Amino acid sequence: MPKISNKGQEMPESPIRKLVPYAEAATKKGRKIYQLNIGQPDIKTPQGALDAVKNHNIEVLSYSHSAGFESYREKLAGYYQKTSIPVEKDDIIITTGGSEALLFAMGSITDPGDEVIIPEPFYANYNGFATASGVKIRPIQASIDTGFALPPISEFEKLITEKTKAILLCNPGNPTGYLYTKEEVKQLANLALKHDIFIVSDEVYREFAYEGAVHHSIMSIPELAENAIMVDSVSKRYSMCGARIGCLVSKNKEVIATAMKFAQARLSPPTFAQIASEAALETPQEYFDDVIEQYTYRRNLLVEGLEKIDGVKVAKPKGAFYCIAELPVEDADDFARWLLEDFEDDNETIMVAPAAGFYSTPNTGKNQVRIAYVLKKENLERAIVILEKALKQYNQQN
Amino acid sequence: MPKISNKGQEMPESPIRKLVPYAEAATKKGRKIYQLNIGQPDIKTPQGALDAVKNHNIEVLSYSHSAGFESYREKLAGYYQKTSIPVEKDDIIITTGGSEALLFAMGSITDPGDEVIIPEPFYANYNGFATASGVKIRPIQASIDTGFALPPISEFEKLITEKTKAILLCNPGNPTGYLYTKEEVKQLANLALKHDIFIVSDEVYREFAYEGAVHHSIMSIPELAENAIMVDSVSKRYSMCGARIGCLVSKNKEVIATAMKFAQARLSPPTFAQIASEAALETPQEYFDDVIEQYTYRRNLLVEGLEKIDGVKVAKPKGAFYCIAELPVEDADDFARWLLEDFEDDNETIMVAPAAGFYSTPNTGKNQVRIAYVLKKENLERAIVILEKALKQYNQQN
Ligand SMILES: Cc1ncc(COP(=O)(O)O)c(C=O)c1O
Ligand SMILES: Cc1ncc(COP(=O)(O)O)c(C=O)c1O
Repeated sequence: MPKISNKGQEMPESPIRKLVPYAEAATKKGRKIYQLNIGQPDIKTPQGALDAVKNHNIEVLSYSHSAGFESYREKLAGYYQKTSIPVEKDDIIITTGGSEALLFAMGSITDPGDEVIIPEPFYANYNGFATASGVKIRPIQASIDTGFALPPISEFEKLITEKTKAILLCNPGNPTGYLYTKEEVKQLANLALKHDIFIVSDEVYREFAYEGAVHHSIMSIPELAENAIMVDSVSKRYSMCGARIGCLVSKNKEVIATAMKFAQARLSPPTFAQIASEAALETPQEYFDDVIEQYTYRRNLLVEGLEKIDGVKVAKPKGAFYCIAELPVEDADDFARWLLEDFEDDNETIMVAPAAGFYSTPNTGKNQVRIAYVLKKENLERAIVILEKALKQYNQQN
Repeated sequence: MPKISNKGQEMPESPIRKLVPYAEAATKKGRKIYQLNIGQPDIKTPQGALDAVKNHNIEVLSYSHSAGFESYREKLAGYYQKTSIPVEKDDIIITTGGSEALLFAMGSITDPGDEVIIPEPFYANYNGFATASGVKIRPIQASIDTGFALPPISEFEKLITEKTKAILLCNPGNPTGYLYTKEEVKQLANLALKHDIFIVSDEVYREFAYEGAVHHSIMSIPELAENAIMVDSVSKRYSMCGARIGCLVSKNKEVIATAMKFAQARLSPPTFAQIASEAALETPQEYFDDVIEQYTYRRNLLVEGLEKIDGVKVAKPKGAFYCIAELPVEDADDFARWLLEDFEDDNETIMVAPAAGFYSTPNTGKNQVRIAYVLKKENLERAIVILEKALKQYNQQN
């Protein structure tokens, strides 16, 4: 039997993956599981986007431009311009999800063996894209005690070598919910300029900022134009995860030209999804106001609920729809498995994402979990009750 | 300004790319261009597939399973079983086009520096996927004089080293239109077994075989089960290029498990497109009969037309919808540019793909072009007339 590559073997699995068999077994037993483990919103997709697809009048479903519909890129540039990001349609490549934009960004700016610095905990699939591109991630630990604020710039500086091609930022953060301040974004920008490296800013949660907090895009710093690459997506903004549309944005012409070669090799992004995404740009402001109100409410409910549980520490998120909670357990991996395999309250249980999978440094975050507040009020309330009961029982047994 | 990677710089552009500005300029001048240069069929997409998307009742457009809808994989397995390919749903990963399946296949079985042997001329984007994966392509030249039949096995054997991970085959071939015989596929299978390497078989044109010729899938050889990886796509089969749905198929569990890690990192294939693709499986046989009749007619028209032109040599294709023609010119690159920039007949011209871009060996195929017969009768007839006139004029001038 022929051998799989080393890279293939090293390719990390999602941190939630190993829980799936337990969840399936629990479901088979008729157990109800409240899923706090994934960032799949329950929010309705804007009707205009869904209708645009219903009303398509395609006869030959042909390839689109490799950079995506021109009309869509033009309107998308308009959307960014309204948020003080001065980009034109030619600064944008439409991708198959933010995922593909991340892959194009890494492919365009790194060679195998190069390094990218990322504050941890971070979105676990960065590991997969890095492995696929042969890139080494150098993590810098952020702490729950500062709410996962940017680690000191001196920590970044220590890690920069001639192999360092970029700092990758997630803003607002998954899994932390942290929203970088204007000052933090500026500090990073200065560092990037000083060492002439890229900043890749994953802003797929850019609309999710709470209580009037302002999101500061990496693209809004004029001096950084040649060094900034933004990754965005319709997945979360419009609850359109299944569309698979995102984009890579940069004022650096060489970055765009290089990423275009990757885009041309895979021909084009999906057409129906582009139709939906272009229509989604017409979504009225009330839709977002409602969504933000929903999430603010859910966040407060979750954070207050968690804070009331003995031994639980939580960093109150300012953006996205995740938070990291420290639990009074030694091994959140074991606890998460136990929740699915051995625990039930009234035949119900919860599924959480052990946070160790979001850290690159081994043996870190072992007593932390990521909780996504994507459930509606009653379910979220019930999930918190279950967590409290489960922690008590788990700690009495162990 | 930060530097782009070497890999990014090396990432090849599509061979047609450099012609695009000339085509755009010609269009601006009001010139009509018959596009013989791309594999974008003009055939209507099956109505059932288009209607399935029109009738969707999605409220929350969520991520699908990373391997694609289970229902779709099950029906797709049924489709393969009907063509003597004994696969189950778990042997299939739905991908974003055949393109992504090629990327997953290379990523799963190779490390940077590994080699893949490919008969040339070959689909130019293999270069892009190889560069993105850090893989070196070792070409073996097929000849227009044998109609691009499989080169002798001894030629393959000469190139196999411990770095060789696979032979990549396109069957039927783009750009050659060659359909490998049962004997040729068996020879390759034996070679792969002897050296314990993979055969990746790109069968996206598997339904396009003419005059009763039979397509022999790499998956139909039981002994090769652990070594065979098939790449397929709905793009050409159902004229659904814009859907962006393909698949990677293998009985090798380790290949599937490894490719699944790549699939999980990018979350899921596009949902609307999966709905269309699942419905497309219900397309009645008459649709394909009509399509094959169309293409057979077009192929005959094209080949007979080309054979009548002085100095033109053509390999009659048995499958797909391309052929390679040798022209009485020294540099087809220059001729293709000249067609767009300097020539017109009644304010019309043609666009062809210079074949050098389909060869990996430098300075090869320089007097060849690839012609796609994706145009309807009248247009194809007119295009041949234009080609004949153009060749005469070009050779008188030069
Ligand atoms: C931080 C972050 N970046 C990127 C993505 C990729 O999303 P998509 O490919 O659906 O746009 C996600 C999805 O969860 C995410 O959380
Ligand atoms: C030989 C071959 N393989 C793969 C592809 C990729 O097609 P898609 O990604 O649309 O499935 C093409 C498209 O032209 C092709 O010609």
